[in-house]
Amino acid sequence: MNPTVALISDFGLDDIYVGVMKGIITGIQPQARLIDITHNIAPQHVRQAAFALLNAYRYFPAGTVFLVVVDPGVGTLRQPIAVEAGGYVFIAPDNGVLSYALAQQEHRKAVTLTNPAYQRPEISRTFHGRDIFAPAAAYAASGVAVTQLGEPLDELTLLPPPTINIQGRRVTGEVLHVDHFGNIVSSIGLMHWRTDERLTLVPAFGDHEQTVPVMAESAVVRIGAETVSGISPTYGEVSRGELVALVGSSGYLELAVNQGNAAVRLDVAIGDRVELQIGDVNAAIRH
Amino acid sequence: MNPTVALISDFGLDDIYVGVMKGIITGIQPQARLIDITHNIAPQHVRQAAFALLNAYRYFPAGTVFLVVVDPGVGTLRQPIAVEAGGYVFIAPDNGVLSYALAQQEHRKAVTLTNPAYQRPEISRTFHGRDIFAPAAAYAASGVAVTQLGEPLDELTLLPPPTINIQGRRVTGEVLHVDHFGNIVSSIGLMHWRTDERLTLVPAFGDHEQTVPVMAESAVVRIGAETVSGISPTYGEVSRGELVALVGSSGYLELAVNQGNAAVRLDVAIGDRVELQIGDVNAAIRH
Amino acid sequence: MNPTVALISDFGLDDIYVGVMKGIITGIQPQARLIDITHNIAPQHVRQAAFALLNAYRYFPAGTVFLVVVDPGVGTLRQPIAVEAGGYVFIAPDNGVLSYALAQQEHRKAVTLTNPAYQRPEISRTFHGRDIFAPAAAYAASGVAVTQLGEPLDELTLLPPPTINIQGRRVTGEVLHVDHFGNIVSSIGLMHWRTDERLTLVPAFGDHEQTVPVMAESAVVRIGAETVSGISPTYGEVSRGELVALVGSSGYLELAVNQGNAAVRLDVAIGDRVELQIGDVNAAIRH
Repeated sequence: MNPTVALISDFGLDDIYVGVMKGIITGIQPQARLIDITHNIAPQHVRQAAFALLNAYRYFPAGTVFLVVVDPGVGTLRQPIAVEAGGYVFIAPDNGVLSYALAQQEHRKAVTLTNPAYQRPEISRTFHGRDIFAPAAAYAASGVAVTQLGEPLDELTLLPPPTINIQGRRVTGEVLHVDHFGNIVSSIGLMHWRTDERLTLVPAFGDHEQTVPVMAESAVVRIGAETVSGISPTYGEVSRGELVALVGSSGYLELAVNQGNAAVRLDVAIGDRVELQIGDVNAAIRH
Repeated sequence: MNPTVALISDFGLDDIYVGVMKGIITGIQPQARLIDITHNIAPQHVRQAAFALLNAYRYFPAGTVFLVVVDPGVGTLRQPIAVEAGGYVFIAPDNGVLSYALAQQEHRKAVTLTNPAYQRPEISRTFHGRDIFAPAAAYAASGVAVTQLGEPLDELTLLPPPTINIQGRRVTGEVLHVDHFGNIVSSIGLMHWRTDERLTLVPAFGDHEQTVPVMAESAVVRIGAETVSGISPTYGEVSRGELVALVGSSGYLELAVNQGNAAVRLDVAIGDRVELQIGDVNAAIRH
Repeated sequence: MNPTVALISDFGLDDIYVGVMKGIITGIQPQARLIDITHNIAPQHVRQAAFALLNAYRYFPAGTVFLVVVDPGVGTLRQPIAVEAGGYVFIAPDNGVLSYALAQQEHRKAVTLTNPAYQRPEISRTFHGRDIFAPAAAYAASGVAVTQLGEPLDELTLLPPPTINIQGRRVTGEVLHVDHFGNIVSSIGLMHWRTDERLTLVPAFGDHEQTVPVMAESAVVRIGAETVSGISPTYGEVSRGELVALVGSSGYLELAVNQGNAAVRLDVAIGDRVELQIGDVNAAIRH
């Protein structure tokens, strides 16, 4: 068995913190494959980590243990937890960081990490990543059942879901993430291409039951003072330096500049409003 | 078998993209050893990635699969390809990113990645790294022959080679890279030390057949308004804070400041002209 | 055997240097598990690397080989060395970078890396990480005894220890590190919690023999123009945005801002003075 432990944190890569967690894991389970998802979550930005985990976890093999340490409440009363769901194990503080990924999973077992047999003998008050979370991940990766790691927990802390509102032919959402390329990722998703002209939108968040058709050519996206007409299949659909709306790799409506940086150009911040007019569906169906 | 997959991309380390590619690879080939060369290629900077690959690949064990994803044309007509050459496999978009490394290899097999058996079932239009390139790398690392991955391809896209001109005792080149230390790497290479006083220059690029002798002590390097006399064996040859010309670890003429940052001090940009006067060879031979 | 090689360097992650070292190691010892501690040591900052190693190494499994390449003197007369101590192997330049970690180890074997059988056939003058240190680490991880790697070395280069002075009830130290979160790590340590009210300080550096009691509630910390009353168990003890003094995860007195950046707020630099008044011990004992 070569279990995978996948890591998300806000520790950055300048300090020893990530390496120390990996040293601990390797000492307990030398066979573990350690894969960094990212350690550059903005400091204490639980929601950004929740969104990163949501979009990453399904691409990992069954049995992967996710070690998610974004933990502004370290040392306070927030609980360290382990959750088994969807064939995966998640180790994290109970601050909502798992809630977007777990919203997709009906059956799950959750425990608080209270069993001292699976912790370091001395627990600091400032680095539970090293003393509680990393050992728990290593033992889970060694086949220790989640139920062995501590006491059952019924209710998990939830984050408020990202905003997505659908009213007639207008969908409003918010900027959830700006990536390394300056691509602006909105909460308007999940969108899937049906044909080059038609997309479907099946909201990932909230209680929307409907599937919304979106006309690629006649849809209009508004963000700040900018308006983009049409949703393109890919970045290269527009000239270099031009703004383009498209469906990103995780299924969310994105704004990008072909070979440029949309976030710098639009001066956008997390939480800014994004609006989508879904286009004239009937007109399109007719032609 | 523990095949190595070595990764180069412009994805940075802030987002989930690199981690997701590794999740995909691990799901297909759990034995793969994943080694990051760098993910901080400047966004869409194909040539910088080509130069990085050129200088890195030969230090990896035979059989290594290189996964190179710098892909401004994702989703457009550029082809995803696999190339077997020199005992290695290279997986990349066909945009020239492999051309500097492959220029050194006479025999090679190239294919386009068209076999759906070795791709993810759904291909997004914006993240071929995840959907096409990572699976291809994982299957190649599992022993699937390059010729199984798709259709043969005769002509690969080539980048124009870096500038190096030799006229009499003057060699002109350009700044190709500025590294993390601020060391300025030029296209004037490959240079090798023969003795402390004499170097040889065997151009890595272009059709130069000649081997050029360079006299370490009497050579002169010009960049911007600065002139450096002599080529030193190492950084520590000059006082702390002083500018030094030397042969970098990949064999290119470099400008550095001992324990300082040459690029900041000289205010240099990629593409800036660098000139080398090779020194008075006859004079040296005489003494 | 799956030996671990743990890496510290100042190479950053923008260039190919770290990847090339890993390629070399993997070619020699394919079973090696490679764990990055950090590659973002400030360029040539030997002391920062020494402190990072000191605080990281003990969390790695016995037998781990530490490859520490912060090497301003590359190519000069400083020696490349290997040291076996405390069940670990350390590979580094002899510039003091090992001295803080080794100060804790009574018995050790040290050699200079002079055996050409365990080096690359050609040694550059600018990248001993690739040509000398990485091969040595790989061979050490393969079970080659340290004594095989070269000639015995009696005296290692030492760094001056970080400042910590104890005079009566006043302890003075210096800022040793500012982490990714902006937390300010001082040289005042190691501190351990006894009870919520009482800490002990057992100096990690210098020749202090005494154990100093510190009263958490009545202790006072001064840095620059700021004064903090009391040492808190954790960040969340104060309101968001408030300055807090606490014992960091490696046992040093830290200054932090709850969910904020203390270094930006206090405008602190490495080497700045930090002062601790240990509080009224007798008063506390009485109540």
